[in-house]
Amino acid sequence: MRADTAYFAPQAWVDGAWAFDVRLDVAADGTWRAITPQGSARGATVLDGPVLPGIVNAHSHAFQRAIAGLTEQGSGTDDFWSWRDRMYRAALRITPAQLEAIATQLYAELLAGGYTQVCEFHYLHNDVDGRAYADPLEMSLALVRAAQATGIGLTLLPTLYMRSGFGAAGLRDDQRRFAGTPASVLRMAESINALRLPRINAGIALHSLRAVDPGALAEVAQAAKAAGWPVHIHIAEQVQEVNDCLAHHGQRPIEWLLDHASLDARWNLVHATHTTPQELQGLRAAAASVVICPSTEANLGDGVFDYPGWAGQGGCWSIGSDSHVTRRATEELRLLEYSQRLTRRQRNIAAQAGGGGSSAAWLLQGALHGGSAAAGQPLGGLRAGQRADFCVLEAQAPSLAGMAPVHVLDAVVFSSPDAGVAAVHVAGLAGAALHARTQSAFASAMQALWA
Amino acid sequence: MRADTAYFAPQAWVDGAWAFDVRLDVAADGTWRAITPQGSARGATVLDGPVLPGIVNAHSHAFQRAIAGLTEQGSGTDDFWSWRDRMYRAALRITPAQLEAIATQLYAELLAGGYTQVCEFHYLHNDVDGRAYADPLEMSLALVRAAQATGIGLTLLPTLYMRSGFGAAGLRDDQRRFAGTPASVLRMAESINALRLPRINAGIALHSLRAVDPGALAEVAQAAKAAGWPVHIHIAEQVQEVNDCLAHHGQRPIEWLLDHASLDARWNLVHATHTTPQELQGLRAAAASVVICPSTEANLGDGVFDYPGWAGQGGCWSIGSDSHVTRRATEELRLLEYSQRLTRRQRNIAAQAGGGGSSAAWLLQGALHGGSAAAGQPLGGLRAGQRADFCVLEAQAPSLAGMAPVHVLDAVVFSSPDAGVAAVHVAGLAGAALHARTQSAFASAMQALWA
Repeated sequence: MRADTAYFAPQAWVDGAWAFDVRLDVAADGTWRAITPQGSARGATVLDGPVLPGIVNAHSHAFQRAIAGLTEQGSGTDDFWSWRDRMYRAALRITPAQLEAIATQLYAELLAGGYTQVCEFHYLHNDVDGRAYADPLEMSLALVRAAQATGIGLTLLPTLYMRSGFGAAGLRDDQRRFAGTPASVLRMAESINALRLPRINAGIALHSLRAVDPGALAEVAQAAKAAGWPVHIHIAEQVQEVNDCLAHHGQRPIEWLLDHASLDARWNLVHATHTTPQELQGLRAAAASVVICPSTEANLGDGVFDYPGWAGQGGCWSIGSDSHVTRRATEELRLLEYSQRLTRRQRNIAAQAGGGGSSAAWLLQGALHGGSAAAGQPLGGLRAGQRADFCVLEAQAPSLAGMAPVHVLDAVVFSSPDAGVAAVHVAGLAGAALHARTQSAFASAMQALWA
Repeated sequence: MRADTAYFAPQAWVDGAWAFDVRLDVAADGTWRAITPQGSARGATVLDGPVLPGIVNAHSHAFQRAIAGLTEQGSGTDDFWSWRDRMYRAALRITPAQLEAIATQLYAELLAGGYTQVCEFHYLHNDVDGRAYADPLEMSLALVRAAQATGIGLTLLPTLYMRSGFGAAGLRDDQRRFAGTPASVLRMAESINALRLPRINAGIALHSLRAVDPGALAEVAQAAKAAGWPVHIHIAEQVQEVNDCLAHHGQRPIEWLLDHASLDARWNLVHATHTTPQELQGLRAAAASVVICPSTEANLGDGVFDYPGWAGQGGCWSIGSDSHVTRRATEELRLLEYSQRLTRRQRNIAAQAGGGGSSAAWLLQGALHGGSAAAGQPLGGLRAGQRADFCVLEAQAPSLAGMAPVHVLDAVVFSSPDAGVAAVHVAGLAGAALHARTQSAFASAMQALWA
């Protein structure tokens, strides 16, 4: 058992605003014992930069870190679907050891990017030939070990992927590693939770409406409800997917989901890029969350989420780095706001949607709030009882020079290069810094993967 | 006189592609003597990362670095024009000494962001009361000293600003520092060029069609043509500006300019966000350039430039960081591509527009090519005879780990956090690194400015 520890920060983000001279007491179990603005530094480790709560990265496919930067060449028409073909090439090759090396590097990068928890939407279940591994958790445990090695919290979401499209009988050959059944993915989630590892829990995911038939969806949803797990699902990311759903079901994806699943606050709808006001209203009534992935949605040409129509009406949302082309939370928040400004031709959309004030504050608070829903546990704030996750910003970052303390968050999100993370703690423990050995193992995995 | 020097790089971006084991010979006058792929390292300083040419930052208002991060709060409707009111608050207060401190920090940041030349669209001519300084170059020389202190190249563009809007008799009171005449700005440009300072030249700018009457525009354009100077002008950034021009002249801004100015390759149209295909065709026929400012255009909610309609037809363009919310060239290129992907719902727009290949390569080549037009001198490549400007990327950056050498540029632009710049040279000399003294002077200026 660890002893209680204490930190003291010149300023820290507490309940949606900066507090100053903050004493941060961590209990021996890794939760916050007390957060005390204008507190005493006695016996505390003094932190030398502004402190932010850790952010939940609500959507990750860790293996896709291996293709970051490798899909940026094209000829003729290039879109989400041609990207997916290239992504499958990595998905088909990757070994458990490679996945562990890649995820370890990624998680260290995510910690350095301000994230303290990652939700893994995990569908690489089978071996390269599509056969079950002797241990059904073979690939899952590679992710678990990566999380343990770096210290980041992990919500593993074993993902059900059964068919190649609406009404299809099964998977394409290049989807053979994804195959599972409701029973197999539920068992994976149960097994991970049964391990009772610190900072690691499991929920469940349904890949998408096109990949899961209605009966299987109902079965998984029912079991998840009984277990109290978070449920994640990709939805309405691409126009083609919306059109396919309309053709098959006569309803748009979210419309169908609202009619056929008992959505509640445990549900996290990933992307939800193409929506109607009625769909958003239905999701809000169900208290479901949306997971926005700004950098990936930009990189894949998905389109722009209706942020004012959602957050402006009190909708709950989180952020995810998804394909990991960007591994820094502040850049995601900036890109989320910029995609809105570019298409709406106004400024401070988050502030306008929230009712005024700092756009960065609305963005950060939204991401913190939604992160708890995504991870299925109370994370996302410097508050007594919550897990003691925080990062310390580089006080000497050029973007913070000369900034009045009350404007520090505005500069962190909107003045770039982004202020770096000098240190990060998860459950009160220091997260792994990026280091040469991890990166060298990652590079070796990349070279083997692409040889 | 310096002696010849030589560098040797594992890979360097030469004529639009990676070359390997490149010897880079710098002549004593600071230009490239020879670029030799598969060359010898004998007697050369070995660089330990990939080498890129220096990029021209084609549009800068240095003083606006002082408000980066300070305009991200709002209530009710917030747009470009409310932002401008806040920006004027800085413009009205800043002293020559503060400008020098701010620009020195900014230019060090720009060097660290991969830029080796900056074009200053400079309209802060008068003192805080709107009176002429005893020395008309008082504010200009603050920028010159900042450039000299850091080593960055500077193209100063004294800017004509005469009236507050189409048909207005003069300036608003809060524009009193901008006041000038065709004669006064032309004289400033002549005086700067007469100094014959290394790496520093001058061209001329017209603030915008709304701020300059047709007769003055013609006078300045004529003189610039005789002198061979680059001419810059803000144009069609905001829809309201287009509508005001239509109301006053019965033509759209670019349409009017095409009819009333003798555009040629020395003209650089800044933003050109709202255009018609006919306007772009006219600009192309005139061989004029467009200066795209992706981060500022996103931050200000301007809208999205018609990149395929311009670059896809061979139009010349450059990038500028304008208001300096972002001070890194790779992030500008990424945001330029992402704004296209988000609104067109396709991927690799730059590659598609260019005819295939690497989006990052098309983006970098475009920016290098257009940069020469903006600065009015041959910059923008590792090529014998050009100024020896280059930066060395951090080979150990996580985004470059495991990358095959041919994909390094793709990762530099599209995998973030962006690979850092380990070293930068301008005319063969090391540019200033960011350091504590510069930043401390900047912070003091900020505190005085906002006290």
